[in-house]
Amino acid sequence: MISRVLAAELHRHVGERVRVAGWVHRRRELKSVTFLIVRDRSGLTQVVLAQSLAVGAETVVEVSGTATANQQAPGGVEITDPTITLLSEPAEPPPFDLFRPRLSATLPTVLDHAAVALRHPTLRARFAVSSASTFGFRTALGTRGFTEVHTPKIVGSVTESGANVFGIDFFGRRAYLAQSPQLFKQALVGVFERVYEVGPVFRAEPHDTTRHLAQYTSLDAELGFIADHRDVMAVLRDTVAAMVAAVADRAGDAVRLLAATLPDVPAEIPSVDFVEAQDMLGENARGEPDLAPAHERLLSDWALRVHGSEFLFVTGYPMRKRPFYTHPQPARPEFSNSFDLLFRGVELVTGGQRLHRHADYLAALAARGEDPEPYRTYLDVFAHGMPPHGGFAIGLERWVARLLGLANVREATLFPRDLHRLEP
Amino acid sequence: MISRVLAAELHRHVGERVRVAGWVHRRRELKSVTFLIVRDRSGLTQVVLAQSLAVGAETVVEVSGTATANQQAPGGVEITDPTITLLSEPAEPPPFDLFRPRLSATLPTVLDHAAVALRHPTLRARFAVSSASTFGFRTALGTRGFTEVHTPKIVGSVTESGANVFGIDFFGRRAYLAQSPQLFKQALVGVFERVYEVGPVFRAEPHDTTRHLAQYTSLDAELGFIADHRDVMAVLRDTVAAMVAAVADRAGDAVRLLAATLPDVPAEIPSVDFVEAQDMLGENARGEPDLAPAHERLLSDWALRVHGSEFLFVTGYPMRKRPFYTHPQPARPEFSNSFDLLFRGVELVTGGQRLHRHADYLAALAARGEDPEPYRTYLDVFAHGMPPHGGFAIGLERWVARLLGLANVREATLFPRDLHRLEP
Repeated sequence: MISRVLAAELHRHVGERVRVAGWVHRRRELKSVTFLIVRDRSGLTQVVLAQSLAVGAETVVEVSGTATANQQAPGGVEITDPTITLLSEPAEPPPFDLFRPRLSATLPTVLDHAAVALRHPTLRARFAVSSASTFGFRTALGTRGFTEVHTPKIVGSVTESGANVFGIDFFGRRAYLAQSPQLFKQALVGVFERVYEVGPVFRAEPHDTTRHLAQYTSLDAELGFIADHRDVMAVLRDTVAAMVAAVADRAGDAVRLLAATLPDVPAEIPSVDFVEAQDMLGENARGEPDLAPAHERLLSDWALRVHGSEFLFVTGYPMRKRPFYTHPQPARPEFSNSFDLLFRGVELVTGGQRLHRHADYLAALAARGEDPEPYRTYLDVFAHGMPPHGGFAIGLERWVARLLGLANVREATLFPRDLHRLEP
Repeated sequence: MISRVLAAELHRHVGERVRVAGWVHRRRELKSVTFLIVRDRSGLTQVVLAQSLAVGAETVVEVSGTATANQQAPGGVEITDPTITLLSEPAEPPPFDLFRPRLSATLPTVLDHAAVALRHPTLRARFAVSSASTFGFRTALGTRGFTEVHTPKIVGSVTESGANVFGIDFFGRRAYLAQSPQLFKQALVGVFERVYEVGPVFRAEPHDTTRHLAQYTSLDAELGFIADHRDVMAVLRDTVAAMVAAVADRAGDAVRLLAATLPDVPAEIPSVDFVEAQDMLGENARGEPDLAPAHERLLSDWALRVHGSEFLFVTGYPMRKRPFYTHPQPARPEFSNSFDLLFRGVELVTGGQRLHRHADYLAALAARGEDPEPYRTYLDVFAHGMPPHGGFAIGLERWVARLLGLANVREATLFPRDLHRLEP
């Protein structure tokens, strides 16, 4: 049997007998001719039949025929004189028309029927962007001496917020789903100096927002032997640049189909200190311990206007709004060696320098009035010599949503999990 | 400040002033000279001091000095005339001597102190092999048109064995940790045709064995438009070959340190039918529905002896020992279009062709006397036109353990989770 040809490659085979395979994307019956549009992972192929053929949308077909040039056909080539084999017939019609330029269904309906809805070229394209982004993330870090790691998602105690964790019955013991690989990636700086992980994290987020999921994919990195958080920011800048480059390189068709605009990543991303940012924002921002979403939008606008950058670092957040492992600024210890990276109006990344001395951890917990016992495993790591280190975490779905201008992070998630959704 | 130089690069800087940083791996005080061996992520550096220096093992130091050729030093170069800065001092000594060629501690002790034990060069090296393996896996599939996906680890119903799942409280509803991405990767064949995922899977394995973990890293792949399981086996062969090549290329030092031998992956891996294999094994194997571990070892020995291959496919397992979604052999429907890949005596990979027609799923469940209702979401996927497809899953930790000759899969896991272990 001749090898299968993908739609995107068909133009190289004009005049040859070819075999294509895919799903019936659309069928149009005219008086003396039937057009089948067959969809495969690379695109669409037009097949011309001299007779009627009663196949429903999403029937899986194999088509053997002649690749024939035709300027009117998608890609300038169509298949004539076809022999069609039905590989699989649907048991029911799809819940929406996949051939239309946009899916006309509400987000809940789309998510209820995700396995079918994702077949729509514009939905599928989002995940080509996602896949290219993780490729760029790994390439940037892999070429900078980082080791990829896989850490436990089941943990015995809760070290971060304490709230918003999923409980799990672990052989009769109480355990939790990890909210982040924070503990482990720090511990592994002691082993590999530089580590990254691409993996699921879990938040029992009790609010129904467009920005939060019960499970999302965290792109985590941590590196040792830094001077301070600025070394982390430099690695993050290069990582984001590599992600954008990988999307352009490996998902260019998807970007064009979605009419998305990729950002330029400046060689040095502009940066503003938290207090200066508050001063710029004026009276109702000043003195607050954090930035409100509206403030993040205003700062992003400012960075674009003044620096021509869609990215902006905000540095030096107050210690009291950062986790206890955050490293303070040496000269101004109520502020931290931390940063957020804003992208197109929202916080995309949080990161910073961490404490690295055992005594500093004990002091930080004591200052917050916290019992060190639940942190015992975590603290043990720092009893054995840890270098100055820091890191960051990028939420993959949030990144893709922002890059493609999707209003809801669920639109950048294959099968979202949230307060109301446990299926499909 | 001059840039930091890694131990492995020091030989390029002989005669220069350099800065290295790392952990005090060993300190040896002689009468008039002190040697510090400093460990970083790339190797060891010898530092020569004219005076005594009381620093404990695992102290984090920065050393500025002159790179000086010395055939007796590791790598043929050492640092003389040093200035030493202590970046971080341990609060307590390490629980074992990291400088000895092997860690002399039992596995439970090693695992209890994983964050320190993993600093030992031979332990760390295992994970360089692991990281290179996943790189090879992704490269093989990425260049063959596969899309990387991230699927839910929290599921609303249990579709595979039913036993051995972890229950979770999901906003007051009963949910489970996914035992595999099986459902999702099949559904996504309908979207992307070819998908892979590298992610955690969870098994509430109630037995304490050297081969099972409560969480492990599954390298999953699934592809559509196959003729049968042999197309899957061909992709698996190329994937394993790419994994071995990536280990040789990116973790060669680790392989040498561990004195491991990488296998040749034959252009075509030898294959034996299940029934023929039983006939070879003789009386006590014949008629059984599966192969015992001892049988797998015998078959592996046979493949090495007769075919010179450390890999062996066993195909055509009886349907009754395979999951309900398994595709039967067309000519012999009590046997399946499935395979195991044996490597050095153990089953490394399970895979095969799946059913793809909705009616076949309903019939398969009915034949097993199972209620289709818990499978509703799963079955919906097949109501909408699915191509013939199949796939496989490689357990990353099992692969690394076998490749490196480690007796226990926990030795290839950074922070294992099992019946008795929830920390660190």
